[in-house]
Amino acid sequence: MEQLSQQDISRQLATVEAQYKALAGRKLSLDLTRGKPGSEQLDLCNHLDGILGGDYRSETGLDVRNYGGLDGLPEAKRLFGTVLGVSPENVVIGGNASLSLMYTVIDLALSAGLRGPESAWGNSDEVKFLCPVPGYDRHFAICEYLGIEMIPVPMLDTGPDMDVVEKQVGEDADIKGIWCVPRFSNPTGCVYSDETVERLAKLGSLAGDHFLVMYDNAYAVHSLYDDAPGLANISDYCEQHGTADSVFQFGSTSKITFAGAGVAFLASSTDNLAAFKHHLSFQSIGPDKVNQLRHVKLLQDPEGIAAHMRKHAAILRPRFEAVLATLERELAGTGMGEWLAPRGGYFISFNTRPGLAKEVVRLAAEIGVNLTPAGATFPYGKDPADSNIRLAPSFPSLAEVQETAEAFVVCVKLATLRQQLANS
Amino acid sequence: MEQLSQQDISRQLATVEAQYKALAGRKLSLDLTRGKPGSEQLDLCNHLDGILGGDYRSETGLDVRNYGGLDGLPEAKRLFGTVLGVSPENVVIGGNASLSLMYTVIDLALSAGLRGPESAWGNSDEVKFLCPVPGYDRHFAICEYLGIEMIPVPMLDTGPDMDVVEKQVGEDADIKGIWCVPRFSNPTGCVYSDETVERLAKLGSLAGDHFLVMYDNAYAVHSLYDDAPGLANISDYCEQHGTADSVFQFGSTSKITFAGAGVAFLASSTDNLAAFKHHLSFQSIGPDKVNQLRHVKLLQDPEGIAAHMRKHAAILRPRFEAVLATLERELAGTGMGEWLAPRGGYFISFNTRPGLAKEVVRLAAEIGVNLTPAGATFPYGKDPADSNIRLAPSFPSLAEVQETAEAFVVCVKLATLRQQLANS
Repeated sequence: MEQLSQQDISRQLATVEAQYKALAGRKLSLDLTRGKPGSEQLDLCNHLDGILGGDYRSETGLDVRNYGGLDGLPEAKRLFGTVLGVSPENVVIGGNASLSLMYTVIDLALSAGLRGPESAWGNSDEVKFLCPVPGYDRHFAICEYLGIEMIPVPMLDTGPDMDVVEKQVGEDADIKGIWCVPRFSNPTGCVYSDETVERLAKLGSLAGDHFLVMYDNAYAVHSLYDDAPGLANISDYCEQHGTADSVFQFGSTSKITFAGAGVAFLASSTDNLAAFKHHLSFQSIGPDKVNQLRHVKLLQDPEGIAAHMRKHAAILRPRFEAVLATLERELAGTGMGEWLAPRGGYFISFNTRPGLAKEVVRLAAEIGVNLTPAGATFPYGKDPADSNIRLAPSFPSLAEVQETAEAFVVCVKLATLRQQLANS
Repeated sequence: MEQLSQQDISRQLATVEAQYKALAGRKLSLDLTRGKPGSEQLDLCNHLDGILGGDYRSETGLDVRNYGGLDGLPEAKRLFGTVLGVSPENVVIGGNASLSLMYTVIDLALSAGLRGPESAWGNSDEVKFLCPVPGYDRHFAICEYLGIEMIPVPMLDTGPDMDVVEKQVGEDADIKGIWCVPRFSNPTGCVYSDETVERLAKLGSLAGDHFLVMYDNAYAVHSLYDDAPGLANISDYCEQHGTADSVFQFGSTSKITFAGAGVAFLASSTDNLAAFKHHLSFQSIGPDKVNQLRHVKLLQDPEGIAAHMRKHAAILRPRFEAVLATLERELAGTGMGEWLAPRGGYFISFNTRPGLAKEVVRLAAEIGVNLTPAGATFPYGKDPADSNIRLAPSFPSLAEVQETAEAFVVCVKLATLRQQLANS
């Protein structure tokens, strides 16, 4: 790009300004801010309400309508254990939000302590967490709210840069954990390599006591393509290295059934689950077992989940491909941005040239295209390069996604050309 | 009783010992430990699953299947606001457990602070709560777990002894709140008098900043008789006295629809709800709105709730009357125990002669009759008089309740006569 003359830039800019003005005239109202399932996806489970046909008994004959069962139905533990690759006895089923489970784990480790008051992270003056970036804003928000200092770590195509992670963890005992979205990472879409997963599993022996890998496997079964890369089983590595206490895995059906009315679950070691359940017992008499039973009836077994997820993929794939084809056609080779083509998950992560993410998001908002705020994918909302933008194409219709992608590339071009002109 | 000769006591004791032995031979397996609805009650709502008939739109057209709506559906706020006697805008709808809402409020006030870090109760060296006794063990468990010192306050037939409450609150700024179950109190069954409700509403002006009446109106609509006493509206009194910030009300449908799969709610002032929702936003993207919509469709309006609760009353009344008739027939005038006949709620509170509650519970357990552990109704599980036993007749069948009541009075007589003989 550097070779372009000021005149070339001006000429290109005039064209893009005209395109932008035309878009502004169309009074768009588009939203790619959050990874919400679209209504066509939600329709896949409309039979969830009523699926019990009046039979409220679990497989053990338990009346799921009544109180109790703090850790969930056996059949739900078995089914969702397969999603996380763990045994049913290592699973706890929660309510509708894995975020609540994550918050509860952090709150427990920080305040009450995973192994009693002596073990509480809060006993240290400083508590720190490693945050691979770009990452998930709600993970970072938990840390910020609870006063945990966040240390960014670069994300590679193989997952967090483990050289950096190991160095940090080895040097600073105040680092108490790391956030991970191991398959189809939010937002880069990368799948952690086997080596990364094994090195994460080994952190527990490198770190001080009560270090936690917060392993949010939100997109465990959310492939867009049948040949999407799989994820190594972290609990197998933990067993091998004797570090089962250092990993909490999380998952949910929020993007399998109903985003707001699904079932969340976590998995960890026996001792961690005992501590978690003790903590939970002061807050709840038990989760909604009726909804757990509905989910087991709907999804049945791992094959049922896989078949169901292929229907989601069929709906999502064209949306992702529309965005990617537009980026490819309009921006490939221009040096105006970089992106990956994810094989699953809910996001496309786009990096503008440094210093332009906020401007692109602002330009888009001005013509009615709402994007996730620039910086949201970084701790404290601060992207040092002001470069990363998360695109979430699941919720709008395919036509809207196409329209948004086209508007987006115009905004990228506009911001970039203006910057180039200013710098030329 | 004191007039009985040792010989009289011995003769009576022989009869009761024989009755007890006969009961032991019957290998009973009865359980009156918890206030769980029975299956006949749960059956009243079997149409809850499937009630939406595929229509997942709220009255505003919102898709309830998706994420969002941290504070609940407008129609749910409106409906459950009527249960607590407040406006919809003062209501937040939660998940399936009011206990979680209560824990979250206490945790917020203690750690993050209702009005920011400066206001956190945890800034004081000591945090204390008033606990009317006998009371609800799960309230006390929250305090104990979170390190809040509990100060027992006597319960009268009109509610907590407000002279004691006001004196304590006026003298000790470390007292940050009081637990209340204002209608059909757990376990005494009393309904707080209008005067008590007004004096509770005025505590906020007597106490230091950020004092909270934790007003768990769990049995707000749970009358056993149409003429059961009503409860004054505490939010009206709060408005009158400018103390809206000092009260959090709680309720749920746990004993209206499904105990484990209902909808919980809370109500408070605008500022308190803003603080609560901010705190909640780090833990949840929103509650299960599908289940909220199911509940609104099922219960519809206050009249719908009232009609539905009459069906519960018809099932529960004979169970309560079986216990009360047995107590009356076997123990009235003997001086062996005291009890009230509640007009609603889930419990009968029974006081043995001092020092006998644990022994009665032990005797009952030995013949297969499980009762709530003695002391459970007191902070730290310690009933100084060792006298109070909570009977929960809702869950077993009527025949089992009858059998349990008869076994119970034999245990009471046995323990009392043995004590008398030892003291004679």
